[in-house]
Amino acid sequence: MLITEQIKCAQQDVEATLNRYFEQPLDTERSIKQATHYSVLNGGKRLRPFLVYATGKMLGANKQDLDVLAAAIECIHSYSLIHDDLPAMDDDDLRRGRPTCHIVYGEAHAILAGDALQTLAFNLIANHPFNVPAQQQLKMIAALAKASGIEGMVGGQALDIAATDKLVNLAELERIHKLKTGALLNCAITLGALCAADTNQQTLLQLKLFGDAIGLAFQVQDDILDIEGDTQVLGKPQGSDVAANKATYPALLGLTGAKQKAQSLLKCALDALAAIDADTSELENLAKYIVERDY
Amino acid sequence: MLITEQIKCAQQDVEATLNRYFEQPLDTERSIKQATHYSVLNGGKRLRPFLVYATGKMLGANKQDLDVLAAAIECIHSYSLIHDDLPAMDDDDLRRGRPTCHIVYGEAHAILAGDALQTLAFNLIANHPFNVPAQQQLKMIAALAKASGIEGMVGGQALDIAATDKLVNLAELERIHKLKTGALLNCAITLGALCAADTNQQTLLQLKLFGDAIGLAFQVQDDILDIEGDTQVLGKPQGSDVAANKATYPALLGLTGAKQKAQSLLKCALDALAAIDADTSELENLAKYIVERDY
Repeated sequence: MLITEQIKCAQQDVEATLNRYFEQPLDTERSIKQATHYSVLNGGKRLRPFLVYATGKMLGANKQDLDVLAAAIECIHSYSLIHDDLPAMDDDDLRRGRPTCHIVYGEAHAILAGDALQTLAFNLIANHPFNVPAQQQLKMIAALAKASGIEGMVGGQALDIAATDKLVNLAELERIHKLKTGALLNCAITLGALCAADTNQQTLLQLKLFGDAIGLAFQVQDDILDIEGDTQVLGKPQGSDVAANKATYPALLGLTGAKQKAQSLLKCALDALAAIDADTSELENLAKYIVERDY
Repeated sequence: MLITEQIKCAQQDVEATLNRYFEQPLDTERSIKQATHYSVLNGGKRLRPFLVYATGKMLGANKQDLDVLAAAIECIHSYSLIHDDLPAMDDDDLRRGRPTCHIVYGEAHAILAGDALQTLAFNLIANHPFNVPAQQQLKMIAALAKASGIEGMVGGQALDIAATDKLVNLAELERIHKLKTGALLNCAITLGALCAADTNQQTLLQLKLFGDAIGLAFQVQDDILDIEGDTQVLGKPQGSDVAANKATYPALLGLTGAKQKAQSLLKCALDALAAIDADTSELENLAKYIVERDY
């Protein structure tokens, strides 16, 4: 199966899981339900769910358990996009070709929808009867909380804001992305592995190296696409990072240097997978896809 | 011990627990750590922590376990205040006599600090080695997530926004407050009870009735204070609800009617406690304090 088809499968599975949640009779106001639903079911790439599924399946995890983790991590990702797009943050009107949450539902509802999606992530994991012990389930929640919070994604966003309009070196830029994007991508892999009954330490270590490498590679490619990409294909204005005076890999390394960086990170990712005693083909294809995608 | 002294004890204990977290070396940016710390250690009344401690102690729970739950629920409460105060929400510059988070750290950091505090709540519970089984710990996380999310606090805030400038009847107003404030106050009691080894169903039911009553009583008294209170004592501008054209109990019932409502809710709360076979004196005193406080 082509990687794009595999990604499509992950998309369908996670969206079915999320839709099942929103199809329940929920004791809440219609507009907040709509704003939350609109933002999480937004045609995203679902890379994090894909990583949950690919890692979990590789290690023999239960499919329904993976559905829940995929949905949970996508809730965290979606909430961060809603808040990132707010006028006080990146002030983006468009996300994947559609008006952003605050454009459609207003700022107050966008703040609340983001808040609700973060809560939903923990709600989903805490309420699902996993096929692994409760202790393992607590580890999933701890991993997701660490990756999302002040020492993960949110910390990275704060660093990113602090770095705007400033001279940032390569080490600082890597730290920003390791927290801002890398922590959650890596967490998707960890969640998939925690969902399997007994994953050995060596495999977990190699998966961590793989996650670090593709996390950075993802960001390098995003920066390259901001320069070379097509607004129509990207679903957001090309050149918006440059316009916002954000630190990027091409700005620090040049476009050729950034492309070499992406290739060297891809090699790191593939080397890490080679040391794992399991069928890593889906993760391999994903790593290649990350540095070859055009949106 | 006077109820005000008992509340002070809860304040000190929860603040010590929160300070221990922030005193750790955290792998994050200084400004987001400061904004988070500033907002959660803000001289709040700590009613939710008090409810966690009072309920848990009454039922024989471990003190260190209660510390963690008290800190977690206060993180959720603090995050909601930061986001509530934002210009797109209530646009408040002052909270407990101090400038609000976005006034000191800017809107972007205030959004992120709120986000980080929500994550921290789940982080704290998932990482603590409780003296009750892991399954019980998952129930705590599920309870906190339900009370905080779209079917709890956030749903209530959305209802509240939708109700501004509209005619709201008493049933609608009660539903708003039951979700917006009541869900989390009730959750504090639930968390305290879940922290005890074996709480019987009858006790849990009575505690739920108690929680519903004091949750509403708290809001009725808040509305009364918005009219009768002193800006200096309140730490926020007196009359701000009226100025914002919010639905309130005095607006619907008159000031005398609102005061009668508070007294009748107090009676419900005390009746619920009377049916519990344990020393409920702290919770009793708290219920009385809620309808007698002047800030």
